[in-house]
Amino acid sequence: MSDLKVVAEPGRQDIVITRTFDAPRDVVFAAMTDADSIARWWGLDETDTRVEVADARPGGRWRYVESSPDGAEYGFHGVFHDIVAPERLVQTFEFEGMPGHVSMDTYTLEEREDRTLYTSVTVFQSVEDRDGMIASGMESGLKQSLDALEKLVTEQA
Amino acid sequence: MSDLKVVAEPGRQDIVITRTFDAPRDVVFAAMTDADSIARWWGLDETDTRVEVADARPGGRWRYVESSPDGAEYGFHGVFHDIVAPERLVQTFEFEGMPGHVSMDTYTLEEREDRTLYTSVTVFQSVEDRDGMIASGMESGLKQSLDALEKLVTEQA
Repeated sequence: MSDLKVVAEPGRQDIVITRTFDAPRDVVFAAMTDADSIARWWGLDETDTRVEVADARPGGRWRYVESSPDGAEYGFHGVFHDIVAPERLVQTFEFEGMPGHVSMDTYTLEEREDRTLYTSVTVFQSVEDRDGMIASGMESGLKQSLDALEKLVTEQA
Repeated sequence: MSDLKVVAEPGRQDIVITRTFDAPRDVVFAAMTDADSIARWWGLDETDTRVEVADARPGGRWRYVESSPDGAEYGFHGVFHDIVAPERLVQTFEFEGMPGHVSMDTYTLEEREDRTLYTSVTVFQSVEDRDGMIASGMESGLKQSLDALEKLVTEQA
């Protein structure tokens, strides 16, 4: 059981996610920014993720493509605003199936002895966009991704 | 008198700004993305703005420095997520005097006969950041900037 929390208060435009990983912060940060690692944990269990670009520096672009077992492809992309290894990363995020709807993610990693507290704050252009993301069932996909990230970083730690 | 409206509803994380410009959309868009033009309208009337970089393409960076008459300098920077000329621009925004507080701006330009309806939606990482921006007196600075932009685009139209 993870300690994953997903908070989306009514009327706000953000989703706040926290979770602890059983690995040091630099290992978690590396897994979040390294292309080969991202391909291993990002996305649903049943999909494959292809990392086209993950240029983790200010102004760098990222684009990941998820492929489902039936061959459908789903693209996601954005740009990195700021990278402060191993503690902080700010990026934009757009699902290409809903072009023009852009959100901004702030990831923060804090040391908790040998463990790492991960916090992400995602802000949306509107409450409707935020509520739509919640309604899409993002929470189960998120859980799968972060469980896969936990598996990866505990192997690497 | 401009028709500037600044809406910041209690408890939300955004500021929504609308205003009409008396110029065609492509002229307004060009003035918002061209470095020499930005230097002429961006910032307070009493300050000078130096555009260090305004690389208006996805992943491009921007950095502007405002200099006040007493010689103090204030830096601002971000990255462009998306540019769809002449209708839409999404960028991140950070005032270097408050590092780590990042917002995301979505600018939309719509044609209204020979005039242009400008809308900006800025979302902040928290309600507190949003309220802090309002409390800083951004509205009078915004008014000065957009009046200067109006002057520039009506000259160019």
